[in-house]
Amino acid sequence: MTLQSVVEEIVLRPIGFIRSPFAEREQAPRQGSEAAAEGELVVDEAYSDAFLGLKPGQKIVILYWMHLAERDVLQVHPRHDLSRPLRGVFSTRSPDRPNPISLDTVEIVRIVGTTLHVTGIDALDGTPLLDIKCVS
Amino acid sequence: MTLQSVVEEIVLRPIGFIRSPFAEREQAPRQGSEAAAEGELVVDEAYSDAFLGLKPGQKIVILYWMHLAERDVLQVHPRHDLSRPLRGVFSTRSPDRPNPISLDTVEIVRIVGTTLHVTGIDALDGTPLLDIKCVS
Repeated sequence: MTLQSVVEEIVLRPIGFIRSPFAEREQAPRQGSEAAAEGELVVDEAYSDAFLGLKPGQKIVILYWMHLAERDVLQVHPRHDLSRPLRGVFSTRSPDRPNPISLDTVEIVRIVGTTLHVTGIDALDGTPLLDIKCVS
Repeated sequence: MTLQSVVEEIVLRPIGFIRSPFAEREQAPRQGSEAAAEGELVVDEAYSDAFLGLKPGQKIVILYWMHLAERDVLQVHPRHDLSRPLRGVFSTRSPDRPNPISLDTVEIVRIVGTTLHVTGIDALDGTPLLDIKCVS
């Protein structure tokens, strides 16, 4: 490592987790647009102040940690299709990558305490949730 | 903390850092669409295999760590304008948030080794780079 970055290591603490119908990696859609599953963003109550302004009907961007991904894989056959040529993970949306953070745009259906019921989820059940942002 | 998440703590290692014209937080544009600065994504050579398939002219999504953000701020006045009512950070794009990860869409202009010259950057100079993905 010859790079001069301002930080060497970053520690994230999940703000909650995702409840979805997808229990295993093979069940999850490969692209967000392929499915519009309903799910829940179960956020820790400690973050309730950060919800001010969120409303049903809004679209939000969520970031989450793909905890089953392989972090030392640098090339993949897109969609696990061996007939397709290898690609570097930085030119794909593969979950396997050095820092396996994914993003989705979902729509808020209902807010119950600090749980957001949403549509458009393609994350696995139990996935650690990292962040929620408004759509820019 | 009453949540049952599969992980309590996540460690990221930056894949490189960003070179941009913005030396201080006050200089950086508040929204990516407000500026189209040129910059560089300086990636560690250890990740060169992950570049296969990246080409000039492509748009890519980058994730980066806003290292100057405050992680314990849960509400903000949008754009630091005190006349605007407080909002929860999850309903904004404020850099201040529990896990200050940002995302931008940028365009590759030139590739030199494992450095990508891009347009559309609004991150601060020296920002740790976390991930590069193709646009979905």
